[in-house]
Amino acid sequence: MSKKVVLAFSGGLDTSYCAVYLAQEMGLEVYTALADTGGFSPDELKKIEDRAWALGVKDYVRLDVSQQYYNETIKYMIFGNVLKNGAYPISVSSERISQATAIAQYAKNLGADYICHGSTGAGNDQVRFDMIFDIVAPEIEVIALIREKRLSREAEREYLRAHGGDIDFKTAEYSINQGIWGTSVGGKETLTSSETLPEEAYPSQMTAKEASRRVVLTFEKGEMTAIDGQPYEDRVKGIQALQALAAPFAVGRGMHVGDTIIGIKGRVGFEAAAPMIIIKAHHMLEKHTLTKWQLFWKDQISSFYGNYLHEGQYYDPVMRDMEAMLESSQKNVSGEVYVELYPYRFEVIGISSKHDLMSSKFGAYGETMAHWTGEDVKGFTKIFGLQTSLYTRINDEE
Amino acid sequence: MSKKVVLAFSGGLDTSYCAVYLAQEMGLEVYTALADTGGFSPDELKKIEDRAWALGVKDYVRLDVSQQYYNETIKYMIFGNVLKNGAYPISVSSERISQATAIAQYAKNLGADYICHGSTGAGNDQVRFDMIFDIVAPEIEVIALIREKRLSREAEREYLRAHGGDIDFKTAEYSINQGIWGTSVGGKETLTSSETLPEEAYPSQMTAKEASRRVVLTFEKGEMTAIDGQPYEDRVKGIQALQALAAPFAVGRGMHVGDTIIGIKGRVGFEAAAPMIIIKAHHMLEKHTLTKWQLFWKDQISSFYGNYLHEGQYYDPVMRDMEAMLESSQKNVSGEVYVELYPYRFEVIGISSKHDLMSSKFGAYGETMAHWTGEDVKGFTKIFGLQTSLYTRINDEE
Amino acid sequence: MSKKVVLAFSGGLDTSYCAVYLAQEMGLEVYTALADTGGFSPDELKKIEDRAWALGVKDYVRLDVSQQYYNETIKYMIFGNVLKNGAYPISVSSERISQATAIAQYAKNLGADYICHGSTGAGNDQVRFDMIFDIVAPEIEVIALIREKRLSREAEREYLRAHGGDIDFKTAEYSINQGIWGTSVGGKETLTSSETLPEEAYPSQMTAKEASRRVVLTFEKGEMTAIDGQPYEDRVKGIQALQALAAPFAVGRGMHVGDTIIGIKGRVGFEAAAPMIIIKAHHMLEKHTLTKWQLFWKDQISSFYGNYLHEGQYYDPVMRDMEAMLESSQKNVSGEVYVELYPYRFEVIGISSKHDLMSSKFGAYGETMAHWTGEDVKGFTKIFGLQTSLYTRINDEE
Amino acid sequence: MSKKVVLAFSGGLDTSYCAVYLAQEMGLEVYTALADTGGFSPDELKKIEDRAWALGVKDYVRLDVSQQYYNETIKYMIFGNVLKNGAYPISVSSERISQATAIAQYAKNLGADYICHGSTGAGNDQVRFDMIFDIVAPEIEVIALIREKRLSREAEREYLRAHGGDIDFKTAEYSINQGIWGTSVGGKETLTSSETLPEEAYPSQMTAKEASRRVVLTFEKGEMTAIDGQPYEDRVKGIQALQALAAPFAVGRGMHVGDTIIGIKGRVGFEAAAPMIIIKAHHMLEKHTLTKWQLFWKDQISSFYGNYLHEGQYYDPVMRDMEAMLESSQKNVSGEVYVELYPYRFEVIGISSKHDLMSSKFGAYGETMAHWTGEDVKGFTKIFGLQTSLYTRINDEE
Repeated sequence: MSKKVVLAFSGGLDTSYCAVYLAQEMGLEVYTALADTGGFSPDELKKIEDRAWALGVKDYVRLDVSQQYYNETIKYMIFGNVLKNGAYPISVSSERISQATAIAQYAKNLGADYICHGSTGAGNDQVRFDMIFDIVAPEIEVIALIREKRLSREAEREYLRAHGGDIDFKTAEYSINQGIWGTSVGGKETLTSSETLPEEAYPSQMTAKEASRRVVLTFEKGEMTAIDGQPYEDRVKGIQALQALAAPFAVGRGMHVGDTIIGIKGRVGFEAAAPMIIIKAHHMLEKHTLTKWQLFWKDQISSFYGNYLHEGQYYDPVMRDMEAMLESSQKNVSGEVYVELYPYRFEVIGISSKHDLMSSKFGAYGETMAHWTGEDVKGFTKIFGLQTSLYTRINDEE
Repeated sequence: MSKKVVLAFSGGLDTSYCAVYLAQEMGLEVYTALADTGGFSPDELKKIEDRAWALGVKDYVRLDVSQQYYNETIKYMIFGNVLKNGAYPISVSSERISQATAIAQYAKNLGADYICHGSTGAGNDQVRFDMIFDIVAPEIEVIALIREKRLSREAEREYLRAHGGDIDFKTAEYSINQGIWGTSVGGKETLTSSETLPEEAYPSQMTAKEASRRVVLTFEKGEMTAIDGQPYEDRVKGIQALQALAAPFAVGRGMHVGDTIIGIKGRVGFEAAAPMIIIKAHHMLEKHTLTKWQLFWKDQISSFYGNYLHEGQYYDPVMRDMEAMLESSQKNVSGEVYVELYPYRFEVIGISSKHDLMSSKFGAYGETMAHWTGEDVKGFTKIFGLQTSLYTRINDEE
Repeated sequence: MSKKVVLAFSGGLDTSYCAVYLAQEMGLEVYTALADTGGFSPDELKKIEDRAWALGVKDYVRLDVSQQYYNETIKYMIFGNVLKNGAYPISVSSERISQATAIAQYAKNLGADYICHGSTGAGNDQVRFDMIFDIVAPEIEVIALIREKRLSREAEREYLRAHGGDIDFKTAEYSINQGIWGTSVGGKETLTSSETLPEEAYPSQMTAKEASRRVVLTFEKGEMTAIDGQPYEDRVKGIQALQALAAPFAVGRGMHVGDTIIGIKGRVGFEAAAPMIIIKAHHMLEKHTLTKWQLFWKDQISSFYGNYLHEGQYYDPVMRDMEAMLESSQKNVSGEVYVELYPYRFEVIGISSKHDLMSSKFGAYGETMAHWTGEDVKGFTKIFGLQTSLYTRINDEE
Repeated sequence: MSKKVVLAFSGGLDTSYCAVYLAQEMGLEVYTALADTGGFSPDELKKIEDRAWALGVKDYVRLDVSQQYYNETIKYMIFGNVLKNGAYPISVSSERISQATAIAQYAKNLGADYICHGSTGAGNDQVRFDMIFDIVAPEIEVIALIREKRLSREAEREYLRAHGGDIDFKTAEYSINQGIWGTSVGGKETLTSSETLPEEAYPSQMTAKEASRRVVLTFEKGEMTAIDGQPYEDRVKGIQALQALAAPFAVGRGMHVGDTIIGIKGRVGFEAAAPMIIIKAHHMLEKHTLTKWQLFWKDQISSFYGNYLHEGQYYDPVMRDMEAMLESSQKNVSGEVYVELYPYRFEVIGISSKHDLMSSKFGAYGETMAHWTGEDVKGFTKIFGLQTSLYTRINDEE
């Protein structure tokens, strides 16, 4: 009886090559699995499945991991306002975690002998897949076929043609990676340091008819639960709805420059309308409802959380500890946030929340002082500055 | 002989009231001093001086503190990419530090008996002035006349009229505080949580004739030294030139919500074209030239540095320690940054630097691998994930 | 009808003075309340109660807050291995929090008009009491009688004698503050920077008969649950039992130098046998069961947690967020810890735990390599050092 | 002409095997180099050199790196009070950095074709050597002979015997690694989690004749410059002198449990009399002379600095940034520290410094209040607690 391999399948050239090679050269039963995080349209899903069957695989499954993806990482990236290097909503890397986990669990349940991924030896994904496969299914051997073979795309294409997998793979000018937490666009200009992507490289174009559009987002304990009063029990659907609404304004674009797991610098364009709006709106609500030190420490923690997530280290228990802290901080992060969309930009207008610490019931900054007097502040200042005052007197005597 | 008081003078209603009261009611010789951080036009400066003399003061001096302001705080806020709560270039608060220091030193040199500031008991500035006066000139007594008197603006006006200081003080709808590191706009909408400033509240309006404008900023060791190839030995002049060039695009606006020193939340609009562009451009250059952990730790440190600066704690020696760290990190932050201005927004296009760690000489992410192999990464991954792998095996056995 | 005041009573001179003054000069009904955190013997409790009645108070209650104290702060100080400035188990300050809370809640339930505490204007306790009373019972007015009166101890004694409260208050050479989480010893030498307390100043003297004594502590999820196999469902009793066992060895002494809330430096001796042993044992167990980054981030967080707790800021919600993180980290901190007591010192010998990441099942450092090869490490090293290697090549070319 | 190899030589079995193998099997000219960090006696140095020549090497040099070692890492470990996991002065790992650097520079100057180190594939040192050789001398190929060969010690011994390198290598019960910043003792008990080293495993035994001994350490800007009034211009000699004086008291011992670079846990005993005394004395001086936030941030930074140093990442420029911060913080860390040595333990008695912030000139905690009043503290407290007070009122209304 042949041994079984689960292939993490995306429908692209690399994993198509793997599907054929694993069966024909290695004599394995190939179970293709697509871990779907919510970035594909029904049409795209149909095409991927068709391609799998056309390659002669033993089986094809679509694993719906969008809820898991939201619960495992997106939720905490919102709580932590996670933007890598202050700019980039961590999309691809966070997706890989839920995908790798789902694939490994599927392989475990199937009793597979091998798992195969199609990552090359040059990027981050190989690290994420290898690590998570090893953690979730240590008993299953990993085949990193593309990394091992080091073929050119032309050679892969030729092999496929020669082995009956003759599918038309266009060479796109840009490599596009679409997910619910953002779409990355790489290639050409992103390989330089000095140029930016041309307008037409972005999948979403500015097509809004209105000059501007007001959106009201409702948050409950840090999660976005409604848009313009329309509740979304299914948080993923909420994100998708906001994306549909905001993408025509071409907002949430940017260029990310950062450190790959491997240590070199990488650069990639992205568009992430919904993620950017949610994070900025959520952050504004937090500025009104959290204390100074909550804001400070959330930032300190989240910066590491985002970096480490990006590096695929989701299963280190320190991540659970940080999530517990982030979750605790969201207790009162509830209310409405008003956002205005404009072509190519958006603005967070303001918020309303019963947890608003700017609550007018207790006086506003610079206006009234129901709870303290100038005399109190004078005393406060004396003590607040005391240590530095003593420090200066003692050390200036020299 | 009368005793001498140095009055921190701004030409506004509060300090005009002080000028008259200190002389006529307290019998002091009033030395007015304007600590100019570079935000005033020659015209404005003339008006302030005229007003001082019209109030019958003993003396008036303008202390030019713009270089000192740049050297003491602006420079480090650039090095640290300091944006309070991720949004606000700390303008007013950082200005107060250099102003208070200059005033206190002037009073010291003059042999003054008192220093007077015009801050009310409701805001942050009283804390900054009191603390810094006490640290720089502990031997001089501070008079916080407005805080003590608690008069309404109407009452102050009446007093002035009755005592020959009859100057026309318009009540502006918005309180505007202009400086080289940003202009704050407070009032009306900023006293709510849910509304934003109307377009016309901003001093700089969108008046650019071009649809967009490319700007090239040169940085040397973290400092902006040239614009479009035009060098600025005087860094302050460079900031002013960039401001003149960018302000017509109405960029760099925002709404800041944050914690006052006093503990309540405050909200204020701002426009800060040059500061926002410089910080974002500088940050992009750092993403290319600093290592992962340099970027990480600079952020951890700068977040505290900005908060503490805002609270007026500039003289705590921990600030010097952090500045030493920030300064060290700028060693290779040199190169050009390309910025594109559009109406109401700007984009950092890219950079070029001989310190660019994305240097093509050593291969680009996902493309070539001159310095390592897929085999190396496989080994790396094994070890990089080892602890969590062991952790999982040990703790899953339960 | 007279108004009611709740007096936080300790039986000392200051609060005895308050008891009489509040009744006789201010005409208030005095309800004395002792918030007992577990540091007193039955004998001492009896004396305090007798003194209260002798002063003619309206009522006396003992509020047992030891469990609350353990649950609210001690537990988390263990989880965080909190030692202020690396040395001092935060005893007095953490106690004050539970005491102030209990007193304020008692006053609330009683419908009291005032709460009185006996802190002077020179120390930390006034800050803790004022703040917590205001947070827990904002509707009740606080009387800080000793701070307001600024009497000498002699004057207080005289007043008491003159008003029938003639109790004998000895002036002790050292001021001793005894609690379950440590006993502080202040006075004489601690007012200098250069001298240490003499042997006899410490309440616990070295009286152990054995040359050494092995103790086995059992931890479950970070909490000490048994000593030498004897379980302690009541954690407070466990701490007390360990204290009884270890104190005769005169261990856990030290000198704390630190920053008071007020900003000046303070110095105080302490003995804290049980706290020091528990923290060091707990920490050792964590080194075996937590991952590298768990250890790192717990430290970063705990350092702030301890400082802020010391400053009485227990009710800032950031403390709840940090507690959530600390609690999460304790999931696997279970096992036995072996401790050896010697005169004046103790040693943590080792641990055993099924969560031990040094588990021999997976190979020991430097010995076997079941899970990786030298080749893996070679690849790891290549990648681990890649960024700095590139950095050096790029920046050394100059 | 034969190619040249520089062999990092220690005189032990592994590097002796390398010396012979490189010459006889690989036909290389073997240049042995001992990087001496100051842990060897003249006698031991003589033996190592004799062994090198006996193995028939082309050349032998002793590279004195003790000053470099002090300047590069020890100094900063003192400034940062670096104790890994709160316990272990980082000795072996910090030594390796200066050693590897010196060896690589020597190889560069010599124009060597190869560098060889004798680390196995199981430990940390291979990572440090590989990384630093690559950074300092990227053009020279590294041979990790022992890692590649994976021979047993018996097989190495046999090979040596068969090839004329017949030297007597005793198999010690414990592997001891002696340096100026501490001596590690590994083996037997340290391979378990539950047992500790027996008394006799430690090189320094308790041999002091006195019951106790007072030592006065002088620090200038954070560096120990004198012992009992005897100045040490040469800091390394100072450390050695303190070690000689304190070692007979058998102080500074401990058991370190921590994370290896490779990700597994390691355990090792150590004795480090001078390092422990210097760090604890230095820390005490800092508690008196630094502000609260200086102490806090030094700790945050140093914790990472120590970990990263341990992992051999000395050349990441973030380390230079942190050193700049640490150096800045030492400006006023000058004065005397009094230490008392007892058998198996020591105590920091106190300090005297003109920078002491506890200076009696400005009043002592709880005693006098020259610079503020109880009224000031009352105002301070009001404001200090204001945010949490508002937070509670706003959020308790639910």
